[in-house]
Amino acid sequence: MSQTPAPEFHTALSSLARPERTLASDNSAGAHPAVVQAFVDCNTGHALAYGADPWTQEALGRFKTIFGDQTESLLVWGGTGANVMALTSLLQAGECVVCSDQAHIAVSETGAPERAMGAKLLLLPSPDGKIRPEQVTALRSMVGNQHSAQPGVLSITQCTEMGAVYSAQEVKALCIEAKKLGMRVHMDGARFANAVAAAGGTLADARAMTVDAGVDVLSFGGTKAGLAFGEAVVYFNPVYAKRAIYVRKQVNQLPSKMRFVAAQFNALLQDDLWIGLGLHSNAMAQRLYEATRHLPGVSYPLAPTSNGLFPILPQAAIAPLAQWCMFWNWEPAIHQVRWLTGWDTTAQDVDRFAAGVAALLQE
Amino acid sequence: MSQTPAPEFHTALSSLARPERTLASDNSAGAHPAVVQAFVDCNTGHALAYGADPWTQEALGRFKTIFGDQTESLLVWGGTGANVMALTSLLQAGECVVCSDQAHIAVSETGAPERAMGAKLLLLPSPDGKIRPEQVTALRSMVGNQHSAQPGVLSITQCTEMGAVYSAQEVKALCIEAKKLGMRVHMDGARFANAVAAAGGTLADARAMTVDAGVDVLSFGGTKAGLAFGEAVVYFNPVYAKRAIYVRKQVNQLPSKMRFVAAQFNALLQDDLWIGLGLHSNAMAQRLYEATRHLPGVSYPLAPTSNGLFPILPQAAIAPLAQWCMFWNWEPAIHQVRWLTGWDTTAQDVDRFAAGVAALLQE
Amino acid sequence: MSQTPAPEFHTALSSLARPERTLASDNSAGAHPAVVQAFVDCNTGHALAYGADPWTQEALGRFKTIFGDQTESLLVWGGTGANVMALTSLLQAGECVVCSDQAHIAVSETGAPERAMGAKLLLLPSPDGKIRPEQVTALRSMVGNQHSAQPGVLSITQCTEMGAVYSAQEVKALCIEAKKLGMRVHMDGARFANAVAAAGGTLADARAMTVDAGVDVLSFGGTKAGLAFGEAVVYFNPVYAKRAIYVRKQVNQLPSKMRFVAAQFNALLQDDLWIGLGLHSNAMAQRLYEATRHLPGVSYPLAPTSNGLFPILPQAAIAPLAQWCMFWNWEPAIHQVRWLTGWDTTAQDVDRFAAGVAALLQE
Amino acid sequence: MSQTPAPEFHTALSSLARPERTLASDNSAGAHPAVVQAFVDCNTGHALAYGADPWTQEALGRFKTIFGDQTESLLVWGGTGANVMALTSLLQAGECVVCSDQAHIAVSETGAPERAMGAKLLLLPSPDGKIRPEQVTALRSMVGNQHSAQPGVLSITQCTEMGAVYSAQEVKALCIEAKKLGMRVHMDGARFANAVAAAGGTLADARAMTVDAGVDVLSFGGTKAGLAFGEAVVYFNPVYAKRAIYVRKQVNQLPSKMRFVAAQFNALLQDDLWIGLGLHSNAMAQRLYEATRHLPGVSYPLAPTSNGLFPILPQAAIAPLAQWCMFWNWEPAIHQVRWLTGWDTTAQDVDRFAAGVAALLQE
Repeated sequence: MSQTPAPEFHTALSSLARPERTLASDNSAGAHPAVVQAFVDCNTGHALAYGADPWTQEALGRFKTIFGDQTESLLVWGGTGANVMALTSLLQAGECVVCSDQAHIAVSETGAPERAMGAKLLLLPSPDGKIRPEQVTALRSMVGNQHSAQPGVLSITQCTEMGAVYSAQEVKALCIEAKKLGMRVHMDGARFANAVAAAGGTLADARAMTVDAGVDVLSFGGTKAGLAFGEAVVYFNPVYAKRAIYVRKQVNQLPSKMRFVAAQFNALLQDDLWIGLGLHSNAMAQRLYEATRHLPGVSYPLAPTSNGLFPILPQAAIAPLAQWCMFWNWEPAIHQVRWLTGWDTTAQDVDRFAAGVAALLQE
Repeated sequence: MSQTPAPEFHTALSSLARPERTLASDNSAGAHPAVVQAFVDCNTGHALAYGADPWTQEALGRFKTIFGDQTESLLVWGGTGANVMALTSLLQAGECVVCSDQAHIAVSETGAPERAMGAKLLLLPSPDGKIRPEQVTALRSMVGNQHSAQPGVLSITQCTEMGAVYSAQEVKALCIEAKKLGMRVHMDGARFANAVAAAGGTLADARAMTVDAGVDVLSFGGTKAGLAFGEAVVYFNPVYAKRAIYVRKQVNQLPSKMRFVAAQFNALLQDDLWIGLGLHSNAMAQRLYEATRHLPGVSYPLAPTSNGLFPILPQAAIAPLAQWCMFWNWEPAIHQVRWLTGWDTTAQDVDRFAAGVAALLQE
Repeated sequence: MSQTPAPEFHTALSSLARPERTLASDNSAGAHPAVVQAFVDCNTGHALAYGADPWTQEALGRFKTIFGDQTESLLVWGGTGANVMALTSLLQAGECVVCSDQAHIAVSETGAPERAMGAKLLLLPSPDGKIRPEQVTALRSMVGNQHSAQPGVLSITQCTEMGAVYSAQEVKALCIEAKKLGMRVHMDGARFANAVAAAGGTLADARAMTVDAGVDVLSFGGTKAGLAFGEAVVYFNPVYAKRAIYVRKQVNQLPSKMRFVAAQFNALLQDDLWIGLGLHSNAMAQRLYEATRHLPGVSYPLAPTSNGLFPILPQAAIAPLAQWCMFWNWEPAIHQVRWLTGWDTTAQDVDRFAAGVAALLQE
Repeated sequence: MSQTPAPEFHTALSSLARPERTLASDNSAGAHPAVVQAFVDCNTGHALAYGADPWTQEALGRFKTIFGDQTESLLVWGGTGANVMALTSLLQAGECVVCSDQAHIAVSETGAPERAMGAKLLLLPSPDGKIRPEQVTALRSMVGNQHSAQPGVLSITQCTEMGAVYSAQEVKALCIEAKKLGMRVHMDGARFANAVAAAGGTLADARAMTVDAGVDVLSFGGTKAGLAFGEAVVYFNPVYAKRAIYVRKQVNQLPSKMRFVAAQFNALLQDDLWIGLGLHSNAMAQRLYEATRHLPGVSYPLAPTSNGLFPILPQAAIAPLAQWCMFWNWEPAIHQVRWLTGWDTTAQDVDRFAAGVAALLQE
């Protein structure tokens, strides 16, 4: 991904109303107003550090309500940290983590998992970021070979870095294959809200694709869902949660004034706000897809299922368009870009952007 | 440290006005109002993630103003993360980190440094947490011995976990000895504001005990100084800063919506608010010391120099007092406790607490 | 690779004279008689441990003679250890190791490099195990991206796991591209003797493809070349050798009674025995190639350049043949096998084996 | 320890017959003749690598005979590697290893355990290298504290680096306390033969102080017992052995031509040769103790129980004596030296050395 700065705009765009928000990333957005308010409101006097405060207790209870009473959740700072903590607490000596070759843990975390675990990530090819059950089954050939790190943890991303969403049934099939080999299953849910929204938008959907499907640990994304910062590592299997508080600190993910994470989560989880925001950003992506899919020069390898669009554009259009309204190149060799909507993207943003695309391409 | 919960109070205390804030820790405090306001104010529209935002640029400039133009600063989430990042970026293969046996990195970080670095911490005995130059000099016997990890980084804490403060001259003497052995020097400044306040309370004092003394990297504490969260890793030597952005992500310390850290820091650094708050909490500690040092049964092994008091109390008084106004046992075997003041401790808090101590002991 | 045990032989083979040695691997061979004799001869009285003995001093001098006076060599136990030590001493925090997706360090060392370094291996596709300079050049897109581990060390295998050999010119081109990006270069020479033999079989060839080409550190293979055990890590750049003795011990590769490694090496290096054995095993591979390349059903994707043959055979022939004279399946999906000759393979072994192949296929 | 080279001898010593062997270390000795013969004898034709050879199978069976049928043993190169492998296979994320502050893993392995495990060693003070059960019991205060790495593995050394020997009863008491805290127990038996010899010299003694006492994994020392190189990691608890073959390779301890380790072990274990050699070197230490303990100027803080003596000498005598017959300074500040006997020390060596000490001190 390479950034294109924006001084003056292409003539086809210069007279158009510009979107107020970019399509660069869902982490370019700020925090939801209710989240900021909760942050402000929790700043009252003293509270014991490291989670021994009422806001944290409330947040942990909310996760139990969503995922069931056996759930153990731990609040952390960031997404890479959540993944690294989850994987580190699941992996055993002699093992490796298996993931997609598109996985955030593999290509966008600077080797943080390898540093914390001292272990290999084994990458499976997956054009849309989804792993197929037969790819897991095929790992059997490594089992018992002393020259090969043993498949220990399967890490899947929901929704994937390419915007694809696993159905609950697909997750379950993966878990079954993984567990036949003695593996544990981690789900990187940095955009879990979008995945749940795509699957139907109910708490039952959230459970179906995680705890009910056999996932052991979920990185529950807060930042991209509307927080200023904060993620939760949600253990469905208490066996693996046993050492989690120590691993959290070991990977530098224990917030001291934890109430400032917890209060944000309480606002996000209240009345399922997170799902509502996921539904909204998915809808904005769909609106953009519909408004652009028939434009000459625009082609979509895949229809969007969550909040990410990955169209292929005429090469000459990419730089002027990104100068006008920021987004990232994804696969420069094939002129593929990424347009990401967020919790704060408005219909006006989308319509303005689509008008810009049309104006530029129809020139 | 073990916590003592507080249902009903001792009769000697039950009729007294209770302090509004505890003496448990400077991380029991919330965030300073100006910090919270800055957090709220930066929540405006889109900003590129990972530091490419104007608030971060402003914060980095502020650190250059304080410590000099060659300074490279990186914002991170937490104190353990700041230390781990600093040490990881300084250490070379085959080396160990040398620190006090009281050091936070050694005894309160769950082995996070060892996990990230895969390296040993070599502990030097130090009752007040301060290392003496001759202890560094004595490391020479290890140099060149292939059975011994080589002394690579000296990590000192300013102020120490026991509240002691190195003078600029003392830091300089340590740096000279360390560099004779080819070592680099890290300063854990989780309570750097209190140290600067103790040394005189000027920016010149801040520079004298760090960049001017030969320190290579400083963990500049934000959380205990008044932020909701956030620390800065400040490199005085650009050689070591070269790989810092990669190491930051590798140790899970790269905030995506970084403006929410930077804006807080901008408020804290504005008009040297951080030093002002350090002066205040140190003064509160001094006030408490004066109000209690002559009480029968209270003895202070050391007079306070920063915001921590470590008195020895009659054993029977500890539990009732902590039930009334929370603080931690420090060294249970000798009935030593820790009273920590913070940026938000008031004179009324101190006076009420001292009155409680007096009432309980004079019973 | 999966082993096929051997109880009774196929009727086409049962009446033939069987080779005395298998084609399983060059580490199925024992040690060369001169090596064993040297082992026996050094067992005389006391010698200081850890390398302070005359045999080790002699061995280190021999490496200087071969590669030049600036060379610093360290003796170690095994090939994985040699690679891990070399890489660990070259890598810096924030970086990754770049290698072929066929590399032994990537696919046959159980994640040992990742465990020791806490760092990622970035795999480049390479059907014959050779990396092309343009693949290194393309790494430039990662440089400076904080979400990506930085390319720090290029590790190439000479000869490769597929038996291919880099020319000195090819190594040089890789080193030039790597150094443009600030990378260091490691060569895994587990079969270095075969590579030197393939390149011409002189010490000048050994230098041309390593120190003269810009390689920083070589894993000089002893075990597959005729030792019972033992490898050398040869540093051409004294900067990287500085911490090598500490890293050796850190990765468990410091032999205490080092004379027993050194004496073996002295025998192997005497009169360039290692090159002579490499020439021999390469010749045996060539002989087998010539004897089988025209047989119906045998196809060779590549002609051999060193001591490994990777023919494709009729599926039905593989198991009976391997039962008769052990070798490993390489790529079962395409019926590709590996035949490896060693320092001890005889012309009779080759001729008998080729007769067996012919008999089985012509049935 | 610092080495003292030896050009010309003190006048008191120059006319005396010099010992043929030094007292520097039991790894200054060569290999036992039976071991060397076995090494030579196994060099016959081809054998599959990595342990799939008859010599290895024989060796593993011999360990089952000694320690019981549930025993799983793995052969490795060296002592540091054996310890690192054992600890890595026992430790879980979030935990630390607890050991004596004299432990070889803590002070003589260059941080190899920390590098492989990414975990802390917690050091307990122990003047003779032995840990007391109450020190283990006291670890309970750390359990459950998220700021403290959890005690996961207790590692004890038998005999200790100071030559002390745990009784079977003492080992059992430590195991009981450790297991109350959920810890596993490792024994570093680099000099296990000396410990068994000291305890009575029977296989029952070997079992009583290990498997019967509750030890989970033993590093069974071969090198110091008479091999050229080679150790065994012996798992008494099959649960922990499950991942051992992968961990062995991950810590670079998998010999490819494993028969050359196994054959040596078969010779050492044949007819309990290892115990016989341990009895001999212990007896030589005792002989030296008796011959020197009454000499003026020699004082022994502890009587020897195994093969190490740690006398305090007049400072002026140390250098001339070590020049004449090499040994190491141990604690220079108090003029304490270390005299180590080995499997090859003769009564003549001892008597000559004692005569030298007497001559020098009585001058």
